[in-house]
Amino acid sequence: MRLKFTKMHGLGNDFVVIDAVRQPVTMTPTLSHHLASRRRGIGCDQVLLVEPPIAADSDFHYRIFNADGSEVAQCGNGARCFAQFVFEQGLTAKTAIRATTSAGLLELHRQDDGLIRVNMGQPRLEPAAVPFLADSRAPAYDLGSGCAALRIGVVSLGNPHAVLMVDAVETAPVISLGPRIERDPRFPQRTNVEFMQVISARHIRLRVWERGVGETEACGSGACAAVVIGRLWGDLADSVTVSLPGGDLHIHWLGEGEPVTMLGPATSVFTGEIIL
Amino acid sequence: MRLKFTKMHGLGNDFVVIDAVRQPVTMTPTLSHHLASRRRGIGCDQVLLVEPPIAADSDFHYRIFNADGSEVAQCGNGARCFAQFVFEQGLTAKTAIRATTSAGLLELHRQDDGLIRVNMGQPRLEPAAVPFLADSRAPAYDLGSGCAALRIGVVSLGNPHAVLMVDAVETAPVISLGPRIERDPRFPQRTNVEFMQVISARHIRLRVWERGVGETEACGSGACAAVVIGRLWGDLADSVTVSLPGGDLHIHWLGEGEPVTMLGPATSVFTGEIIL
Repeated sequence: MRLKFTKMHGLGNDFVVIDAVRQPVTMTPTLSHHLASRRRGIGCDQVLLVEPPIAADSDFHYRIFNADGSEVAQCGNGARCFAQFVFEQGLTAKTAIRATTSAGLLELHRQDDGLIRVNMGQPRLEPAAVPFLADSRAPAYDLGSGCAALRIGVVSLGNPHAVLMVDAVETAPVISLGPRIERDPRFPQRTNVEFMQVISARHIRLRVWERGVGETEACGSGACAAVVIGRLWGDLADSVTVSLPGGDLHIHWLGEGEPVTMLGPATSVFTGEIIL
Repeated sequence: MRLKFTKMHGLGNDFVVIDAVRQPVTMTPTLSHHLASRRRGIGCDQVLLVEPPIAADSDFHYRIFNADGSEVAQCGNGARCFAQFVFEQGLTAKTAIRATTSAGLLELHRQDDGLIRVNMGQPRLEPAAVPFLADSRAPAYDLGSGCAALRIGVVSLGNPHAVLMVDAVETAPVISLGPRIERDPRFPQRTNVEFMQVISARHIRLRVWERGVGETEACGSGACAAVVIGRLWGDLADSVTVSLPGGDLHIHWLGEGEPVTMLGPATSVFTGEIIL
């Protein structure tokens, strides 16, 4: 069996994108592992599957698979690549689409400059929604105690995030603190961790420790989480450029009750056909 | 510009193979770096370029590029993939071909079972040819002194090799000793290092520390080097199965003055087209 695919990346976070609208695809753990293997397969962080719509008011159903075959709910870089793919491949004539995912509805829009805008939904700030163990909602929480206490903000964007302010991202203790915060018992489902340096109200620098992965070049939901927390803390404007190691994202959030939108690039690198 | 390629691997050592016979290709450091990049390019250990013959008695000219654009003289796993590629792509109707490389002539043959046989040429055992600093040729040399001395065999197969006998490859100090031997001052061009466990006269297990790379899943010239040294030391027969972490190779060597041949698999994973 031959499977056509496109290899893409969003700020260095890379994906094998498969059109399951025009060709039959049955995803299995064996197949996703093979597709994601860098030396004996195609190689990617995650496999994105574009399926026909399963709801009346949507254009596609979109699924994300890890190398081990497990399904992921949310990936900001993946969402931009998915959108770029359906526009480039002519799977839709629209420039704005709606896709169902296991985490809910995604709204995606391709700008004239080729950048993709993703409606990431409303951030969830109640501790139980993250989930984060706290007696009540607060703008910030102390993690740990005494001199070792860390002031963090917590928010869910479909996945949990802990945000810290740092003086300089270059020297931030991402590798040492990231895994400790990720596995802090107050995050029952563990957490992503963002280290944010505020350059101005409209520009931050960010390094992200991703849950179950480690430090990455770019994390779309992490960029949104940082801007939400930085805005709640009064440090940021409603439109912020987030400079990640892999490149820049532009995050827009008017405030509570409003959705976060993310604007950024998605790059097609090559097309291929693999014999299975 | 669009460039067609095939992604292949030999026991997990992976290559982007490009037909420069039927499409124009100008290799540059920028291009080889992009092709070899795993997240923003195609991703591979090395890029293989198949060019038209430049000598009367040969079928192809064959070149190997690292990610940094530097050209490599020899790669056993790459040679098998190169051969499989020209046979599969119909670039030749023969089942045995001769290719010129910067290290000399390669003779390659595809067996009916699909395995590729490579004539790796005669091993060079004179210390100056490796190069290895020694007063005269000996079957084995002591590297270091006193209790820390290591008994090694040295041989060139177009690239330098130091071979050690170990009791068990699982517990061999590949990570600690490999880089120390690689950079021992007696190897002026540094060296690959093979850790060999003799199971029987016809079967060894092998781990390889590759010069400038680190431990790899499989090294074709390293497998040849181990069999040459093991045979000179009286431990091996003329045909030996070499079990590497990535899989098995079959090495044949009748003895001094004869070429070493390597038999092993080469696997095409997918074909693709990249826009440059």
